Amino acid sequence: MAEIYSKTQRAVRWYPPAYDIRVETVPVPKSAALSPAIPIKTLTSCLRSILHPDDAIVKITLAGLCGSDLHVYRGHEDVNDPLICGHEFIGEVVALGASFSSDATNRPALYSDLKLGDKVVSPFTVSCGECHFCRAGISCRCIHSKLFGIPDLPGGQAQYVRVPKAGGTLFKVDSITSLMPPGEEHTLADSSLLLLADILPTGAFAALQALQHPKISPWVNGSAYPYNSFVPEVMASSRPPALPLEDRALTFAVIGLGPVGVCATVSLLHLLAEIHEKSGVTFRVVAVDPNASRREKMQSVLALPSFPPNIDTVVVADIEDAKGVVARWTGGVGCNAILEVVGNNSALTLAYELVRPFGLISSVGVHQAPQLPLTGREAYDKNVSFDFGRCPVRSMLPIASSILIKRQDVFGGIGDQASLIEKVVGFEEAAEVYDLFDKGRCGKVLFDPWQ
Amino acid sequence: MAEIYSKTQRAVRWYPPAYDIRVETVPVPKSAALSPAIPIKTLTSCLRSILHPDDAIVKITLAGLCGSDLHVYRGHEDVNDPLICGHEFIGEVVALGASFSSDATNRPALYSDLKLGDKVVSPFTVSCGECHFCRAGISCRCIHSKLFGIPDLPGGQAQYVRVPKAGGTLFKVDSITSLMPPGEEHTLADSSLLLLADILPTGAFAALQALQHPKISPWVNGSAYPYNSFVPEVMASSRPPALPLEDRALTFAVIGLGPVGVCATVSLLHLLAEIHEKSGVTFRVVAVDPNASRREKMQSVLALPSFPPNIDTVVVADIEDAKGVVARWTGGVGCNAILEVVGNNSALTLAYELVRPFGLISSVGVHQAPQLPLTGREAYDKNVSFDFGRCPVRSMLPIASSILIKRQDVFGGIGDQASLIEKVVGFEEAAEVYDLFDKGRCGKVLFDPWQ
Repeated sequence: MAEIYSKTQRAVRWYPPAYDIRVETVPVPKSAALSPAIPIKTLTSCLRSILHPDDAIVKITLAGLCGSDLHVYRGHEDVNDPLICGHEFIGEVVALGASFSSDATNRPALYSDLKLGDKVVSPFTVSCGECHFCRAGISCRCIHSKLFGIPDLPGGQAQYVRVPKAGGTLFKVDSITSLMPPGEEHTLADSSLLLLADILPTGAFAALQALQHPKISPWVNGSAYPYNSFVPEVMASSRPPALPLEDRALTFAVIGLGPVGVCATVSLLHLLAEIHEKSGVTFRVVAVDPNASRREKMQSVLALPSFPPNIDTVVVADIEDAKGVVARWTGGVGCNAILEVVGNNSALTLAYELVRPFGLISSVGVHQAPQLPLTGREAYDKNVSFDFGRCPVRSMLPIASSILIKRQDVFGGIGDQASLIEKVVGFEEAAEVYDLFDKGRCGKVLFDPWQ
Repeated sequence: MAEIYSKTQRAVRWYPPAYDIRVETVPVPKSAALSPAIPIKTLTSCLRSILHPDDAIVKITLAGLCGSDLHVYRGHEDVNDPLICGHEFIGEVVALGASFSSDATNRPALYSDLKLGDKVVSPFTVSCGECHFCRAGISCRCIHSKLFGIPDLPGGQAQYVRVPKAGGTLFKVDSITSLMPPGEEHTLADSSLLLLADILPTGAFAALQALQHPKISPWVNGSAYPYNSFVPEVMASSRPPALPLEDRALTFAVIGLGPVGVCATVSLLHLLAEIHEKSGVTFRVVAVDPNASRREKMQSVLALPSFPPNIDTVVVADIEDAKGVVARWTGGVGCNAILEVVGNNSALTLAYELVRPFGLISSVGVHQAPQLPLTGREAYDKNVSFDFGRCPVRSMLPIASSILIKRQDVFGGIGDQASLIEKVVGFEEAAEVYDLFDKGRCGKVLFDPWQ
C-alpha cells in the first residue's frame, strides 16, 4: 500500500501560450499535505485535509498521453494559465473524504464500497453519479462535469491527483477483474487498464451509437423502419415480417486510425461478431487513414489471434481506395454508418461521401472552430443523421471492460507493431514525447510517474 | 366509377424562371390517351397504352398546395422546363398496367389487390416497395424514388396523374377506413385524407424520430443510457434498475408552426399521450413560431376536443418567449429534443440553443444551399445529434393514418380558425393562391380539379 511522506510531487506542466512542457515539483493535492510521519493506513483520520468530502486522492500508477492533450499543447484551447497535464490515469486510492462511509447507502455504491488501497480507473471527466444526467447514464454531461488537465482541475500526469465526486467518477479495477476467469486476474496489465480512461470507451461509444441508431436498426434487429425502440400501439398490431438475412448485410467505415480509431474498429468488430453469432447477419468494415504507418498498425492488430485468420470482412485503406471499396461492396449505395474519429472537416466531408442515404455519421472526433462543412440541402437530400460529442465513459465502462478482457491480445501489448501503446517513459522524457507525438513521430506513450 | 372520354385534361403548370403559374390544357397521361368512346370499365383491355406495366393512372379528387411547392415556384430548384405542379393528391384508380394481376403474388400486395375504382392516397414520392431501401422501410430513399411535380414526373395538380411503381407507391383508402368503427367510414373527409400524402406523415416522422432516438430513450423507455434497441450481452447481464418516473419528464420544442409544424405538434402530443397512458411519464411541449397568425392557428387546434381542456403541458410561443419557457421548465438545461420544421439556418440555430446537452434535433425542414450554421466544436461540446431529411411517407402511413382517424377534429375541418386547410378552390384560382400562399397571405389550399 502506498504511503505519502512528502508534501511535494513531480508533475508534467504545460505553460502558455503553446508547446512548453516542463516537469516541476509542485504541492501534492490538498488531502496529502500531511505530516510526513503519517503512514497511509491512518490517513482516514486526517480527513480535514481533504478539499471536499466527496474527493479521493489517487496515487498515479500510469498516466496516458492522448491526442486531445495536443489541443492544449498547441495553444488551441484558449487557456492562459499553466496547468498539470493529462486526463488518462489509473492508480490507487490513498485518501478519501468524509463522504466515504458505510452509512452512504443512498449515494452511488462507491461512497460505501471504496477503500484505501483500491485500484481504480478514472474516466477522463468527473461525473457525480447523482445528477439528472448521470442518473440517465449521460455521465459525459454531468452537471459537475470537469475535464482533468485544465487549470481548474489538475490532470493525471503527476504522482498524485485529486478526483472530485470520486464515488461517482471512479471505477474499481476489481469490478473488471471479477469478470475474468478465477486465477487469470493477474494477466490484466496496468497499461491495458489505462486504455479504459478514455480511448477504448470512446471507440466503443462510436460503435454503439451506430449499432443502436434507428436508421441502422433494420439491419441490426431485423425489423423494417420505423419499428424500433419505441413502437406506437397501432404499429405493433401491424408489424411487418422480419427482414430476411440477405437484406441485413451491414457495411461500415471507420475514418481515422489513431489509437481511438483502432479502438473504435476493434469495438465495432467485437459487437458485430456478437450480432453475427446471434443472428447470422454479415458485415464488412473499411478502416480508413491516409497515414501509412497507422494503416500498418491497424493491419497488425487485425493479424492478432483475436480475429479469425484470413479475415475478409475488414479492409484497411487510404482515402481513395476506401471510396472504391465502399462503391464495390455496396454497388455505389454507401455505408450504413461511418465512425468519424478524427475531428476535422476533411473527415466529416469524407464521411458524408461514404455514407448511404438514410445512414449515420457517428462522430467522436473532437472538432474545433470551423463551421460544419455541409449545406443543409446536402444533409436533407441524403437523410443523413449525425451523433456528435464526448463519450459518457463512466456509463460505457461495463461494455468497454468486457471488450478489454476478451481482446487482451489487442489491448495488452506495449511496443510491438500491433500494440496501441508504444512505450512507457518517465517524466524526464515528457517534453520530448509531447514534441514527437505532436509531430506524428511516435504513437501512444504512457508515463510512469515513479520511474 | 370515373370514365375518361377525353384525350386532354386541365392542369396547373409552372413556367421558368419563377412565379409563373398557368392553367393549361395538356394531354392526359399516357394510358388514358384512348378513344373517347372507351368507357373506363373496359380500360383494362387497353393496357398497351400504359407507359410501364407497373403504372397506375389516378383520376385526381383533390390536390394540395404545399410549402415545398414554393421552392419550385420561387425558382430555387434549378429547373429549366415547364412542369405540372404538385406532389400531394388523392384520387381514384382509372387504369392499371399489366403488372396488376392476381398472379403477382411475389410483389407488393397492391399488385394483386389494387382494382379500378379504388380510392387511393399517394405519398409525395414514388417508392417501388421492392428495392433494398423499400424492404428496409426506407421508402423515401427508394432507388426508383421520384418526387411528383418535377419535369420528369408530372405532378398532381391536374385531372389525371401517372403513378409509377404504383403497387409499391399507393395506399388504399379502405385500409385506412378499415381501422374505423363500422358505419363511421363515411366520416373521413377527402380533405383530411389528402393530408396523408405528405404533411401528416412528415409531422409524425419528426416526432417519431425524436421518440425513438437512443439519446431520448432513457426518458421514453426508462432504461439509462446506453441501454437501448441493441444491448450487447455483457450489458444485458448488468442492466441498471429502471429510472424512476420523476427522472423521466420529457421536454420538447417544435420550431415552425406552418401546416407541417402543426401536424408535428399534434403527432408528438398524440404519441406522448400514449407513452403517458402506458407509463405515467409526463411531458411538456413548447410550439414556436415568430408569426402571430400561425401561433393563433396552433392555439385554436389545441382548443379542439382532441385535447384535454385547460391543457397545461403545451405552450405556444414566439422565439423570445420560447427561450424563457424552456429555461423555466428545465432550469436552464434545455429540451430533450427539438422538432425543426422550417428548413433554414435561423431555425437550426434556435434549435441548437433550445436543445439540452446530449439532445436531438429532428429536422424535417427542406433545407437549402447555406452551410450548416454550427461549428464542429459547438456540435461536439453539446453532444448534439441531428436527424435530417425527407419522410419515408409510405412506411409512416399506418401510424399517420391512425393519428388521422383519432384526431378528426384536427384534420377534418376546412376554413375554420382551427383548420389546417383554409379552402378548396378550382384551378382557375391557381395563380392567385400560389401568389397569396407565397406571401404568407393564405393558409393551406386544396385544388378540386373538377370544380
